Amino acid sequence: MTNIITISREFGSGGHEIGEHVAQQLGWKFYDRHIVEQVAKESGLSEKFIEESGEYATSRSSLLFNLSIAGAAMGSGSLSLYDEIYVEQCKLIKKLAAESPCVIVGRCADYVLRERQDCMHIFIWADVKARIERISGQVKEGKSPEKMLKERDNRRRVYYRNYTGQEWGKVQNYQLALCSSALGLETCAELIVQLVKQQNG
Amino acid sequence: MTNIITISREFGSGGHEIGEHVAQQLGWKFYDRHIVEQVAKESGLSEKFIEESGEYATSRSSLLFNLSIAGAAMGSGSLSLYDEIYVEQCKLIKKLAAESPCVIVGRCADYVLRERQDCMHIFIWADVKARIERISGQVKEGKSPEKMLKERDNRRRVYYRNYTGQEWGKVQNYQLALCSSALGLETCAELIVQLVKQQNG
Repeated sequence: MTNIITISREFGSGGHEIGEHVAQQLGWKFYDRHIVEQVAKESGLSEKFIEESGEYATSRSSLLFNLSIAGAAMGSGSLSLYDEIYVEQCKLIKKLAAESPCVIVGRCADYVLRERQDCMHIFIWADVKARIERISGQVKEGKSPEKMLKERDNRRRVYYRNYTGQEWGKVQNYQLALCSSALGLETCAELIVQLVKQQNG
Repeated sequence: MTNIITISREFGSGGHEIGEHVAQQLGWKFYDRHIVEQVAKESGLSEKFIEESGEYATSRSSLLFNLSIAGAAMGSGSLSLYDEIYVEQCKLIKKLAAESPCVIVGRCADYVLRERQDCMHIFIWADVKARIERISGQVKEGKSPEKMLKERDNRRRVYYRNYTGQEWGKVQNYQLALCSSALGLETCAELIVQLVKQQNG
């Protein structure tokens, strides 16, 4: 039985679009920017700051961090602002996942929900050429798109490692990993929908 | 268009069975032990020795090795026996892939055929519990199955790295990566067959 799908994705791989399509097809909730907006609302910080916090990480060791959060409360002053945002996101992800079947993109949701047995964790990647095409509208003038891809992936990797202690994109963290440029976005989405329908038969 | 499927797999993950099922369903040739038998026949070495060579590697750097094979011929004395077997396997894999659509399990076939555009490269893994169940008949008395899994995976990792310079099981080397214990062997096979039929439509 699958009630939750988490999608981790390389920058520019189309993971967001795939997740959105899957959620539509299954009639499930879809969370990506929603999580950012919600944390913004509750914390009073700007959405932009919170969105960017998802790609920055402190140098604190993840183990120490995970040990420390148990006893720490939002606003107690014992956590950095980035760490507080992460803690709030974790709470919100768990709450949303408890409410109804959903697709959650990014934000370490695979790790946050690791103890639930009804999750399908998915990783989406794509070749560099396809990713460059996809992000072409977002690249600032004079900046190399290859460099932008590297930087953004690297931020996701560091953030993920810092908060989970795991390696981002390691095949054994995902029940399914798909190359969206080889298979096509639509095929990826269909395949996921079909798997879930089959499991939930 | 997909004419060739290569399957890399964790020891005990059922990758062999999945590949065999896919080949049957598609009416394609299936190569796993066949490659070992063929190299044995041509080299005069025992099948057991060749099979085991697939999981041992020299400490030579893969780059140097790859540079050196260009000018080296079987039996010239400039390569170790393991390296000569690898070279023969490469030739055989390329020959078989040129003959007819097929599924090839293991033996770095994804790397050997990397320049062909009509391959689907797949990685199969499974959780440790499922793998232990699968290998239970092969574990020698007094030996820990967990240790056996680790040893065999490690041999595959070292072999792959030595001859390809790439990281075994790195998600970006495969268009598709599946957890057979989460999805089921049959579902994995069906999913692959469906993807190929769709692409070849």
